[in-house]
Amino acid sequence: MVPHSTPIPDHESTRPSAPPDHRNPLPPPSTMRPPRGNALIGQSGGPTAVINQSLVGLVEECLASEEIQNVYGALNGIEGIMDERLVNLGLEEPRVLQRVAETPCAALGSVRHKPTLEDCERLLEVMKAHDVRYFFYIGGNDSAETAHLLNQVAVDSGYDLRLFHVPKTIDNDLRETDHCPGYGSAAKFVAQAVAGDNEDNRSLGGVKIDVIMGRNAGWLTAAAALARCGEGEGPHLIYLPEVDFEWDAFLGDVSDVMERHGRCVIAASEGIHDPDGELISRPAEIDAFGNAQLSGSGSLGDILRERVKAGLGNGTRVRADTFGYLQRSFFGCVSEQDATEARAVGHAAVRTAVCGERPHGSAIIERCDEDGSYRPAYGCVDLELVARHTKDLPTEFLDGTHDVSEAFLAYVRPLVGPLPAAGRLARYPVPRRL
Amino acid sequence: MVPHSTPIPDHESTRPSAPPDHRNPLPPPSTMRPPRGNALIGQSGGPTAVINQSLVGLVEECLASEEIQNVYGALNGIEGIMDERLVNLGLEEPRVLQRVAETPCAALGSVRHKPTLEDCERLLEVMKAHDVRYFFYIGGNDSAETAHLLNQVAVDSGYDLRLFHVPKTIDNDLRETDHCPGYGSAAKFVAQAVAGDNEDNRSLGGVKIDVIMGRNAGWLTAAAALARCGEGEGPHLIYLPEVDFEWDAFLGDVSDVMERHGRCVIAASEGIHDPDGELISRPAEIDAFGNAQLSGSGSLGDILRERVKAGLGNGTRVRADTFGYLQRSFFGCVSEQDATEARAVGHAAVRTAVCGERPHGSAIIERCDEDGSYRPAYGCVDLELVARHTKDLPTEFLDGTHDVSEAFLAYVRPLVGPLPAAGRLARYPVPRRL
Repeated sequence: MVPHSTPIPDHESTRPSAPPDHRNPLPPPSTMRPPRGNALIGQSGGPTAVINQSLVGLVEECLASEEIQNVYGALNGIEGIMDERLVNLGLEEPRVLQRVAETPCAALGSVRHKPTLEDCERLLEVMKAHDVRYFFYIGGNDSAETAHLLNQVAVDSGYDLRLFHVPKTIDNDLRETDHCPGYGSAAKFVAQAVAGDNEDNRSLGGVKIDVIMGRNAGWLTAAAALARCGEGEGPHLIYLPEVDFEWDAFLGDVSDVMERHGRCVIAASEGIHDPDGELISRPAEIDAFGNAQLSGSGSLGDILRERVKAGLGNGTRVRADTFGYLQRSFFGCVSEQDATEARAVGHAAVRTAVCGERPHGSAIIERCDEDGSYRPAYGCVDLELVARHTKDLPTEFLDGTHDVSEAFLAYVRPLVGPLPAAGRLARYPVPRRL
Repeated sequence: MVPHSTPIPDHESTRPSAPPDHRNPLPPPSTMRPPRGNALIGQSGGPTAVINQSLVGLVEECLASEEIQNVYGALNGIEGIMDERLVNLGLEEPRVLQRVAETPCAALGSVRHKPTLEDCERLLEVMKAHDVRYFFYIGGNDSAETAHLLNQVAVDSGYDLRLFHVPKTIDNDLRETDHCPGYGSAAKFVAQAVAGDNEDNRSLGGVKIDVIMGRNAGWLTAAAALARCGEGEGPHLIYLPEVDFEWDAFLGDVSDVMERHGRCVIAASEGIHDPDGELISRPAEIDAFGNAQLSGSGSLGDILRERVKAGLGNGTRVRADTFGYLQRSFFGCVSEQDATEARAVGHAAVRTAVCGERPHGSAIIERCDEDGSYRPAYGCVDLELVARHTKDLPTEFLDGTHDVSEAFLAYVRPLVGPLPAAGRLARYPVPRRL
């Protein structure tokens, strides 16, 4: 690569020498020499606190690679590619990249668009015009699906494009990877928010309901359990989409907790649904991938609050908050481990791509616990294993109908790192005199 | 005071020697020798991130005072006094007190109860029984009113009670004081939340509405302006209760911003109201002090979102979040300056009380800017000046109908302290090839 400060002329496009052969796709990856050419990076889907760490990790490793001449960024993901809105990330100063890495949300702009076959052909056309031989797409399962579709079109057209999905999602619901970059920081936000809410509820009593993101799976809501700082402390009840939500059982649970502790903190996933699969919330919109838009609305919190208030029927103070987009974008609540891993997964994806081991894939994080201490490792799996589908909490991470297990806490703790600890007065009683 | 580790026997109650004389109240404060006796501390109203700093500041200074024998805490404010639920704070270990100081929300428990005359008489009865001669009540304007009512009953009864209100409120709407402990930390949370939201909105576009606490005054919503990191950056529009809210003007403002910047971040106070004074939100409840309960519900956000969506009428992505109780209770977002001042205002209140300068009052913070650098000083004013009423943003802190002025930013910056700064890619364009 050329030095940072020198403007880089675009590399001349080199067309593949043979015409595409649809019935004769590329040879097996292990035998393929990695091509020389340019790299392109895009960001997609809902942002996270550390998605820019992965972006900068990719840029750093591309700059260090001999196979990669220029490293480009697509503004607003595949939409920017189709519009040919590309920027030269190799010209950015390292100190700018470092500050960008520490800034939440997608520095290149994001997109929620499911490409058609024509879109994929246009994407390839632009990539060919810019001699893009390496495409890295940072996103969730929908973005992996986009990458998978585009990869099929590239393979069919015979264009040697190395295409890698780099995981990110606060939902932590991608398959194959142990966990997703972005989850640790969002889980930390949720833990600190619920911990503060437990203090608030101790102060003023009553029932407090916190609605937490996670349309399909309860990973983020489950992290609320990290806030629990002792016996009888909140969150007292945790409701996840993995367990059918039943009103009678719920209202009974709340009454029980009120009787035992005189107060109640509830963490509820926005995706909770009744035994027929009907959402308890009222989705406002459906996106291009068919996902119900549940965030950005306080409706579930208000529904739960009204029912609890009516159910208890004794004038108990009941409040609900919907944590909303703060969970993914709050500026200043990052898990150090998450930030480190998000950067490292970017580095690893480029190394996998340029070593020629495989022509496409989805980067993953594996857990290599040694002597009981957490250690991540980085790998890669086939795109189709990650595309579209999501991963629920396994049964061993659940505890009954409204809590998570110790096994889940052991899983999540190293991803979030240290949390602030509440101080408690001993409260030495003063003897009564009246 | 006795050492921390030794259990302290309750001090014998000393009744006033003369019967109370309702027409002959206490002599002027400056001539009064401070009494010897016990101190009692209570916390009241909505918690803040630093209300326990004030609690610990009071305890520390009471322990250092010769006039004060024991320092007691009332559980759940005046309710705990009426029930005689008192704890001996002098027995708490210093390291516990320090951890409690750093924990958000009221460590003694809080209360929202407006005392009747009978309640005040019961409060005095309990205080007399425990020889309480110094009462410190940490709270907002409603708590100052409670203190004021109780003080009148104490004066009428001839019982020498030194009664001080110690300010706290994230709303920052107390009179006389330059600002309120608790505000700086909540303002910091709001600034970091809106800063992250601006990044989120840059990533995915559309309109984002953030509903921020502040029933009567716009201080906390105004702090969203601290998030603005450059020209064209959000929050683009700020709506405060100090300015009448008009739907047509609002929808016009949003359209203008969308046209200019292609996206729009809005900070709206929960207390915005139409020119007739009707709240735009639908209050869920009214509390004992006659305040509408606006938080703990997503209704205003949902109303604004629906109207913007219909008003723009072009399928623009519109989302709303209600920051809710996180603003006062989030565990891990504290302004250092706010924490320092909250502790210091506790120290100052005790020093004022035991020096005998005045028998009652409300502690305040004054701003002594020297050479352009911020410096706080601590004073005390009459209770009745602070009780009940609130303080709006002055006109010079407003800029038109939907923004705050530079004067406001100069006022608020030192209270919040440093904020994380967003990194921005230079975005060197790649020349088009198609």
